[in-house]
Amino acid sequence: MKIDRPREYVIQNLKYAFNPSSIAIVGVSNNPAKFGFQVVHGLRRYRYAGKIFAVNEHEDNVQGLKAYRKLTDIPEPVDMVFIAVRAEKVAPIIQEAIEKKVRIVAIATSDFTETGRDNLQDEITNLCRSNKLPMLGPNLLGIGNPHFGFNCGFAPVLPKKGGVALISQSGSAMLGAMGASQLRHYGLSFFAGLGNKADVDFSEMMLYAMGEPYTRCIAMYIEGLDSPDAFIDACREIVLKKPVVLLKAGSSAQGAKAAFRHSGAKNIGVNNAEFEKIFEMAGAIRVDTWQELLDASLALSMQPPLKNDNVALVTNGGGSGVLSADHFERCGLPMKDLAEISPDLADKMSPHMPSYWSGLNPLDLSGTAAPWQYEIAFQNCFEDDNVSCVMGSVCTTAVTNYSAITSVAITVHERYRHLGKPFVMEMHGGNTCNEAIVELRKHGIPAYPTPEQAVNAVVALRKYARIREKRT
Amino acid sequence: MKIDRPREYVIQNLKYAFNPSSIAIVGVSNNPAKFGFQVVHGLRRYRYAGKIFAVNEHEDNVQGLKAYRKLTDIPEPVDMVFIAVRAEKVAPIIQEAIEKKVRIVAIATSDFTETGRDNLQDEITNLCRSNKLPMLGPNLLGIGNPHFGFNCGFAPVLPKKGGVALISQSGSAMLGAMGASQLRHYGLSFFAGLGNKADVDFSEMMLYAMGEPYTRCIAMYIEGLDSPDAFIDACREIVLKKPVVLLKAGSSAQGAKAAFRHSGAKNIGVNNAEFEKIFEMAGAIRVDTWQELLDASLALSMQPPLKNDNVALVTNGGGSGVLSADHFERCGLPMKDLAEISPDLADKMSPHMPSYWSGLNPLDLSGTAAPWQYEIAFQNCFEDDNVSCVMGSVCTTAVTNYSAITSVAITVHERYRHLGKPFVMEMHGGNTCNEAIVELRKHGIPAYPTPEQAVNAVVALRKYARIREKRT
Repeated sequence: MKIDRPREYVIQNLKYAFNPSSIAIVGVSNNPAKFGFQVVHGLRRYRYAGKIFAVNEHEDNVQGLKAYRKLTDIPEPVDMVFIAVRAEKVAPIIQEAIEKKVRIVAIATSDFTETGRDNLQDEITNLCRSNKLPMLGPNLLGIGNPHFGFNCGFAPVLPKKGGVALISQSGSAMLGAMGASQLRHYGLSFFAGLGNKADVDFSEMMLYAMGEPYTRCIAMYIEGLDSPDAFIDACREIVLKKPVVLLKAGSSAQGAKAAFRHSGAKNIGVNNAEFEKIFEMAGAIRVDTWQELLDASLALSMQPPLKNDNVALVTNGGGSGVLSADHFERCGLPMKDLAEISPDLADKMSPHMPSYWSGLNPLDLSGTAAPWQYEIAFQNCFEDDNVSCVMGSVCTTAVTNYSAITSVAITVHERYRHLGKPFVMEMHGGNTCNEAIVELRKHGIPAYPTPEQAVNAVVALRKYARIREKRT
Repeated sequence: MKIDRPREYVIQNLKYAFNPSSIAIVGVSNNPAKFGFQVVHGLRRYRYAGKIFAVNEHEDNVQGLKAYRKLTDIPEPVDMVFIAVRAEKVAPIIQEAIEKKVRIVAIATSDFTETGRDNLQDEITNLCRSNKLPMLGPNLLGIGNPHFGFNCGFAPVLPKKGGVALISQSGSAMLGAMGASQLRHYGLSFFAGLGNKADVDFSEMMLYAMGEPYTRCIAMYIEGLDSPDAFIDACREIVLKKPVVLLKAGSSAQGAKAAFRHSGAKNIGVNNAEFEKIFEMAGAIRVDTWQELLDASLALSMQPPLKNDNVALVTNGGGSGVLSADHFERCGLPMKDLAEISPDLADKMSPHMPSYWSGLNPLDLSGTAAPWQYEIAFQNCFEDDNVSCVMGSVCTTAVTNYSAITSVAITVHERYRHLGKPFVMEMHGGNTCNEAIVELRKHGIPAYPTPEQAVNAVVALRKYARIREKRT
């Protein structure tokens, strides 16, 4: 539902959604096949440190917890109420929450606007708004914060700790991100599956994220914008401090219909070009695919903006280098010759390189490249004032010491990070590379399994710098 | 080097590169840091069943093998010679190989055209050609065939068995594919890192692959084409039997320079539009990124062509469905409403679906979808004459029984595969999804971790059908 401007009480109370001292779950169940069961299970599994209260109309004891008949029966204060009951029963529970003076409600229940029941959704939204009780959902998958071991909802795993605030109107997309987090250490500061997003607006979530201490990049999956003006104003303010990257889903004809049925997002009639203009004005970085959203946000959460186009690429794989160069051009950031960036750089490195090395850009160290050769190349690039970004690329031949090269990358990054030059890695291979990618990410280096993904990351860092330049 | 037309003796002898009874390695070494060591190690590790002969100028015994001073000292016949010595020493060894009447030579040695030494490369190429000895390389990473446990070169792992023939001018790109094979069961029929590709032409490799019994799809990474006419003629013949998908690298200005330094590919002056025309005439499916090459080739090796645009998408994740719909439109294959495909299909399924299910396309079964609901949906789609392709999508909420859904997908695929309708799956999540993807791939179902990748796979199947229609 539209807002005129971001509401201060919403932004203030959102902290109770991501780090509540106490939480009441309405609709808990003893049946593991029910969502109501999984909420308590998810909280316990990751050792939620606050108090959990169970509310159930019929049972006295659920999942080993004393169950209260009503919210108002709970004898202690409650920060957040999580609701997972049938749609018809939601309004009376919100009424209880208002009486109980809770700080925020999150509604998992579906069957509202997305199935044509606008009235029911408007009713609960108005009820919340007139009582200044912020509401997340309905049709919400879950919320959480890995820094506090807080996993509240239907997500089967808590993601790794990191700097990306993931705000998603889609639960399945969010689950995809959590999967990526488990597989390749995609680190989150907090996550919110907003579902129908009836009350709390994207702008309010973003303003909360701006002040959230773990957040270094805001990533969003958006199906519809209720309040474009509030979005633009908030985003313009935020991007001076933290980058915003987003995926607008439902940009196709069939996708728009599906988005409406999914989250009640009303995009039919608002075309892609209009969204493009909105995001441009807002200063948000727009990506097309889910993978790009993950890859760009990871880099933006770990590395500084890239101030110009002087990217030096160091690789032991000729093919990866060519693929990267092609993709840089495809993305509007064509690579420059090394001599164009810095006339003496190749000569400085040459004595340490194989006779047949390529002093071009990409700098091809050849398939026999040793860790110390990577170190010399990285070092020279970082120390050269004209190089603004270093991208490293490794393919694991039978003689590649990938783990030593990984250590070199981590050491070099520590040594030169004060220079504010982005560093991005690409590791092209199997299990060993995957382990290296995780290791690099743990050390704040965005690392990727294909050349094009690493290039997308560098391009996002460049885009963010351009957005900031425009605003200052 | 250019050829006028594909040479019969080359196509015939290529089988000795992928399944030789005996192999001689020139340049073997006792030092594990040397490529020469790794070749023997790689052959033994995967239990190569043929005979291995070691050739070393100075040693009598290398890696536990009797070492011969010269190729001609070997007392038995040799099918293939693998050469890993300095560039200057290659020509005399080829001379010995000719004397010895071997069937094919593979040259790993670099420092030829890619470092400006055209003469040296031309010399060995002409020597081979005038003696009808096919030559792979120089600057070649390796060749192999998982179906025969044959890993010959510098690849650290042998890929999984499958139906994709991977022909790559880049070693690092090939290593990327092998990594994907290890991580997510990307199955190959054989692989060849061609390097500078001085003698054996892409057209000859492709014609060999056309007759190779394990190959169901030909995937190529190309930096340059020496003989476009031979390529077009061969490809037009092949695509009537097997699909060809390719990535043309070096299509950017900087990429073209890097490609030249990498494999000696001379693309400067030949622009992207010309390549586009060549591939169009040839009937090859062109992709842009490395990931797309892997994803499209996997699908083409497992599933039949898609005869029209009637794709039904079954999902439990609204967001994945929207992302897929958007990407289908982006790829020029917009989704249709379910009613447009088949008027009664939604009604047939409705009794078994939750009240709030979406009878649209994507068919959104909602986050609570049970395995039996997937089964009903898949079944109805397969049995409907108007549906030409079924795409399944699963996101793992806390109540999703992903392993049962995986079993359902495998069972349904077995039951209906005789209908010739492509089936593609998407599993959006973490470790559990990754395991499911591997399981599905083992059963011939191309499965992917993001919606857009699965869509790319379906689009490739549609493109292949269009290419065949044009030719018949």
